[in-house]
Amino acid sequence: MTHVDAREPQQDRSRATRARLLAAAITCLAELGWSASTVAVVAERAGVSRGAAQHHFPTREALFTAALEHVTRERGEQMRRQFAEQGRQLSTEAIVEVVFGLFSGTFFRAALMLWVAAAAEPQLREQVVPLEARIGREVHRMVVDVLGVDERVDGVRETVQATLDLARGLGLANLLTDDGARRGRIARQWAHTLERTLPR
Amino acid sequence: MTHVDAREPQQDRSRATRARLLAAAITCLAELGWSASTVAVVAERAGVSRGAAQHHFPTREALFTAALEHVTRERGEQMRRQFAEQGRQLSTEAIVEVVFGLFSGTFFRAALMLWVAAAAEPQLREQVVPLEARIGREVHRMVVDVLGVDERVDGVRETVQATLDLARGLGLANLLTDDGARRGRIARQWAHTLERTLPR
Repeated sequence: MTHVDAREPQQDRSRATRARLLAAAITCLAELGWSASTVAVVAERAGVSRGAAQHHFPTREALFTAALEHVTRERGEQMRRQFAEQGRQLSTEAIVEVVFGLFSGTFFRAALMLWVAAAAEPQLREQVVPLEARIGREVHRMVVDVLGVDERVDGVRETVQATLDLARGLGLANLLTDDGARRGRIARQWAHTLERTLPR
Repeated sequence: MTHVDAREPQQDRSRATRARLLAAAITCLAELGWSASTVAVVAERAGVSRGAAQHHFPTREALFTAALEHVTRERGEQMRRQFAEQGRQLSTEAIVEVVFGLFSGTFFRAALMLWVAAAAEPQLREQVVPLEARIGREVHRMVVDVLGVDERVDGVRETVQATLDLARGLGLANLLTDDGARRGRIARQWAHTLERTLPR
């Protein structure tokens, strides 16, 4: 038993180190961009030795894709909880605002930096493409569920996809300047459009 | 007169050098991303000496924002001509496809690389923000004109903006994988929606 007891705190420490590295990777990526976000920079920001960082993540690509996967899962669960608690009472406009909100802030900024870097780096691209596809499918499924729409109806699938593509485009428009007020007006208008075109 | 004659070919050469640098800047940016697109790399690709490149564009930021401005003007004129010739005969779906097409290919890829780099580099950001605003206004105006809609009507402005934000989001979705087939389906669906919601 003493053997197990001695190992437990070490596992906790290891888990905490990993979590710190993932969080630091996201903020570095969002603030500095891909080129400046080396493993050394992330390790320093996390207060972890470079050796420890490399023990957890053998490559730079592995560190950043794991970080994005981690945040996606967290945010997905958060959104699912929010929708599960309030889903049926939420207005279409409130749902649209939650979806638009997913594509803003540090998380979206970090993801954007990674997607764009992957366009010029084949090694990174290989890891990012399947991750992007999985994230896309999960978010799509959540939005279909919370809107309570039937994708077998003609045009419904495309309208839900358009909602997510619109959210992504708004996220990009919000990158260099605060576009929040305009986004709010578009959310209202988009909610009207959804109510008129999607049978809930 | 001999003085003028002697200067003319030199001016032509200078203009040709400038044009080659602008074109090379766009392809470098689209293919290599911002970090790898130095003035030296662009000059080599253009077949121009580094000194000549620096004579035309004193800073790296000046070269790339000029390049983007140049391509924007060219593509804007091309779109305006196409719309002027065919505007009233174009179906809403064809118009949506032209607009979506603006946010794809080398031009959009280069612009995206520049926007995203500007998020992490204040000096670049200063030049990119007013350029982005101007491009945004010009494209918006063109789309309003070709759709023949009245922005004083409630919701029209937001719906036109949403069309452009949707196009931008689709452009981003097309960055790492060919998303053309899905984009075509969304264009069809979006054209239906526009026809139902925008009085032309």
